[in-house]
Amino acid sequence: MAAIIDANSVGIVTPQKMVHDAPFTLASSKQLPGYTLAYETYGELNSQKSNAILICHALSGNAHAAGFHSLDKKPGWWDNFIGPGKIIDTSRFFVVATNNLGGCDGSTGPLSTDPETGRVYGPDFPGVRVRDWVETQHHLMEYLELDSWVAVIGGSLGGMQVMRWALNYPDKVKHSVIMASSMKLTTQNIAFNETARTAIMSDDAFHDGRYLENNTLPQKGLSLARMIGHLTYLSDDGMDKKFGRELRSGSFKLGQDSAIEFQIASYLHYQGGKFSTQFDANSYILMTTALDFFDLAREYNDDPVAAFSHATCDFLILSFSSDWRFSPERSKEIVDALIAANKSVVYTDIESTAGHDGFLLHNPRYESVFGAYMDRVYQTVLTASCGVPQ
Amino acid sequence: MAAIIDANSVGIVTPQKMVHDAPFTLASSKQLPGYTLAYETYGELNSQKSNAILICHALSGNAHAAGFHSLDKKPGWWDNFIGPGKIIDTSRFFVVATNNLGGCDGSTGPLSTDPETGRVYGPDFPGVRVRDWVETQHHLMEYLELDSWVAVIGGSLGGMQVMRWALNYPDKVKHSVIMASSMKLTTQNIAFNETARTAIMSDDAFHDGRYLENNTLPQKGLSLARMIGHLTYLSDDGMDKKFGRELRSGSFKLGQDSAIEFQIASYLHYQGGKFSTQFDANSYILMTTALDFFDLAREYNDDPVAAFSHATCDFLILSFSSDWRFSPERSKEIVDALIAANKSVVYTDIESTAGHDGFLLHNPRYESVFGAYMDRVYQTVLTASCGVPQ
Repeated sequence: MAAIIDANSVGIVTPQKMVHDAPFTLASSKQLPGYTLAYETYGELNSQKSNAILICHALSGNAHAAGFHSLDKKPGWWDNFIGPGKIIDTSRFFVVATNNLGGCDGSTGPLSTDPETGRVYGPDFPGVRVRDWVETQHHLMEYLELDSWVAVIGGSLGGMQVMRWALNYPDKVKHSVIMASSMKLTTQNIAFNETARTAIMSDDAFHDGRYLENNTLPQKGLSLARMIGHLTYLSDDGMDKKFGRELRSGSFKLGQDSAIEFQIASYLHYQGGKFSTQFDANSYILMTTALDFFDLAREYNDDPVAAFSHATCDFLILSFSSDWRFSPERSKEIVDALIAANKSVVYTDIESTAGHDGFLLHNPRYESVFGAYMDRVYQTVLTASCGVPQ
Repeated sequence: MAAIIDANSVGIVTPQKMVHDAPFTLASSKQLPGYTLAYETYGELNSQKSNAILICHALSGNAHAAGFHSLDKKPGWWDNFIGPGKIIDTSRFFVVATNNLGGCDGSTGPLSTDPETGRVYGPDFPGVRVRDWVETQHHLMEYLELDSWVAVIGGSLGGMQVMRWALNYPDKVKHSVIMASSMKLTTQNIAFNETARTAIMSDDAFHDGRYLENNTLPQKGLSLARMIGHLTYLSDDGMDKKFGRELRSGSFKLGQDSAIEFQIASYLHYQGGKFSTQFDANSYILMTTALDFFDLAREYNDDPVAAFSHATCDFLILSFSSDWRFSPERSKEIVDALIAANKSVVYTDIESTAGHDGFLLHNPRYESVFGAYMDRVYQTVLTASCGVPQ
């Protein structure tokens, strides 16, 4: 079955690649001899180049944020929000989405061949930190001959990239939109990541990350890691409303010893199994480790106000009431620091039972606040186009 | 190093066993040809037999609730609360603790030999439900020639046994003490259990539960299951206070690509590893499945008020503010149903950062409320001893 493409879709999109053929030194000091960044664009860049938006993806995202690849049935991961007439309106904005370095969907990562050894990197791919992604996105910016982003937008791990952009390239970002994110992981967040990584590494097929050379894949471990992740993406209430204690098979009845399967169990196994065929285990370890490392204010004496004092853009911060992975408290900490640093910030906590996944899903209040802010971003585009200094 | 036994300890205790050598039909209709129940007792039964207390253990507990086995360095799992002069005062009460049927610490379970086949039960051990434990505890009551419990006490899964006692044997329970428990699991609780079971079953050494016959143990899977469990035993705040983002090894510094290990990761691996050498994987699956099945009001048209209308005892319900496994909301549901059923109930939510583990740990407010209630339980003993009808 081919895609059903309506008037609000960006339609068929073509995956693109930037080849950066100079050495690239990572935050860890390790060097890549060069790298490829997969990206996609939606909408048209205006003549003043003032309408470019960068979308930063979360843990397991990719460059395919909207529209359809020729034969796909399903659109990109944020198609709900990106398209003509949608919140991130491609009739107004030129939207750029990348696959993060170290990922497994077109950009150089553990699945790539190390040109120096001729072998797959696998577990030898160097550790990547959020700031490295910002650097590669900055390379792409230069490659696309852009001077600035009118907005950098991302949820969760994507939001961390947005914050890093605002601090490291303050003159190149007009608006930062950060949803369901955090300035650093809590101990509990780290505990979940560690448990997920342990699931992968405990799989006998993992072979210390050299599964490809062993002609195998740690699918059971990766599936389990994804199940552990999913526990944190949904809220208690949301799970209860969607699945309750409904059984898919078996019976609670007395006098029976049949196995039972809950609907929620079936859902988790389905999500885990699907993911384990689509994602790379070494990339999963790399991405969760980048999350663990991220600490926005570390090099500013652990003072978020001092950190954000370097930013010059305006901010929209959004949290979701039932998100317990990055709870509204985490967003409020960002907002408090921004206010103390005397920055322009709009903040709303969106009432939702969708948990951490809330930033990906339709929600009238979310779309109303996010949409109003994107109108404001568009005003920045129009103002720039009139030559009015900002 | 031998045990350090002080005046508030029940001292050296001897593990005991009840052999029930008649067939026992489980709630599932499956029959065991007979079974053994491991138990311990602390304190002395009075002449009126009016001071007996039953302790029901949680998921991974056992009959060794207090005191020391001869060479142990560490006392039983609830030694903080059971002993002469302690909250459950063994100079007042005769305290009985069992290892649940299907467990792996002395009672018949998956590690036992099926007398009908001469083989280890392993995964063929029949499913056990909370009501089956109550039946075996009732067998023990008869074996010990007791007519009633002045109190049945338990936390978490133990609290579910207490509720079942109150409903199924109302004339044999004077007081029910239920902490950190729930009338049924939430969807999220089930999701965590399913993920933990999947961790065990994904271990290649599991062999569909026949690991003993394969001369192996699914220790990696069981360790991971315990890590997943631990995520829910501690609170976000408690983890943060205890471990924060402290590193055990490695460094966050820029310019370094060394591996890092967080203290929380080290803690989880230690807990998982230790557990995987002490507990049986099939028992873990059995216990978590019993949790999933438990639904106090199911056979009362899903009406908890109708369920509790069968109880005649007094109730103490305790919850812990930071417990997100069985949150205070779950306890309040129990309390609301008890009040609507016109039962005598005392309820307190204990302010604590200890999460679900709160019921096992010292806490002045907890001990004050629990202690005051145990004084009331002792009044019931004294009243019975004076021959005053209750």
